[in-house]
Amino acid sequence: MDTLTRLEETIRQRMADGDAAASYVAQLHARGMPTVARKLGEEAVEAIVAALSGSREDLAGEAADVLFHLLVLLVEKGVPLRDVLAELDAREGLSGLAEKAARKA
Amino acid sequence: MDTLTRLEETIRQRMADGDAAASYVAQLHARGMPTVARKLGEEAVEAIVAALSGSREDLAGEAADVLFHLLVLLVEKGVPLRDVLAELDAREGLSGLAEKAARKA
Amino acid sequence: MDTLTRLEETIRQRMADGDAAASYVAQLHARGMPTVARKLGEEAVEAIVAALSGSREDLAGEAADVLFHLLVLLVEKGVPLRDVLAELDAREGLSGLAEKAARKA
Amino acid sequence: MDTLTRLEETIRQRMADGDAAASYVAQLHARGMPTVARKLGEEAVEAIVAALSGSREDLAGEAADVLFHLLVLLVEKGVPLRDVLAELDAREGLSGLAEKAARKA
Repeated sequence: MDTLTRLEETIRQRMADGDAAASYVAQLHARGMPTVARKLGEEAVEAIVAALSGSREDLAGEAADVLFHLLVLLVEKGVPLRDVLAELDAREGLSGLAEKAARKA
Repeated sequence: MDTLTRLEETIRQRMADGDAAASYVAQLHARGMPTVARKLGEEAVEAIVAALSGSREDLAGEAADVLFHLLVLLVEKGVPLRDVLAELDAREGLSGLAEKAARKA
Repeated sequence: MDTLTRLEETIRQRMADGDAAASYVAQLHARGMPTVARKLGEEAVEAIVAALSGSREDLAGEAADVLFHLLVLLVEKGVPLRDVLAELDAREGLSGLAEKAARKA
Repeated sequence: MDTLTRLEETIRQRMADGDAAASYVAQLHARGMPTVARKLGEEAVEAIVAALSGSREDLAGEAADVLFHLLVLLVEKGVPLRDVLAELDAREGLSGLAEKAARKA
């Protein structure tokens, strides 16, 4: 199983366990969607700053944080990662500017 | 090959081709890192708003946009996706709050 | 009357008029809070990018956009600007790190 | 003197004093522009979340944080607040959609 799918499953289990004393994911889940959404925004801001002012290593770490919190947000909302990847696959058949138009339709 | 790895390769090729008339990715690359970083930020904002005010379908589409523009940012900066996934794998061995501490270290 | 207070009044009037054909503010109001919130986020991202990669003139323009859309958001939510300024005045009496603690309390 | 102009002056003095042990502003300044820009982004994200999921009081507090950190960013970059307000005044003479066009020009 690939990294993101495995991580999605781990996040789902930690939310189900709900052990906020032991799990960061369970803590986020207990605080609810506004907190989860805020965390994604903060990590995206850190990725932007790393891209413009940091090293490649900085950006790698911040991108990992973005992916992690995006997965938490998807699980919190009940959106399977495979639906998001299927959306990307559907666009992938398109090329160049047609792809952009599809994204925005 | 999985969706994100294939998409990363497509983005790399379109940047190398540099055909801004035909490719959205080549357009972003031509405008440079500030534009690429800005796009990630905008898509993250849209994902936050979709999570808090939209449907699951809305969030699936916005999450696809976040992943797409995160990959563009990584390619623009020269960070391989596999480095980001390796970082997530390394954290995955940890559990719960130890994981959070590792993220912030 | 100072610039921001006058601008707040203009925004309030344009929302009340509701003439989306003639007014950008009325258009935002017609689309609702998610759109208004999204706009603030986008302008904040542009200000970050301008601060890190642009000129002082770039940042002045983006900061004006942030202030404008922050006022639109406040009016949309029914929060008077004077309440926000009163909050800043209350903190201003404090100094240094006490101020930070007050902000986060 | 109005609240924001007075606050701008306080921020300028605390940066000049550079006493990071006593002043939050001096701490931000010591860490540099990437940290200052990141803080504005985080506060904007919190304002978005408050607008969509919080009370009017929540948004008033977050809007104060946005204004405070926007001023810190402006001082850090050397942009006088009066230049930003002058830009808003210049746009204010315009009405409706002309104003939007001016913003984007």
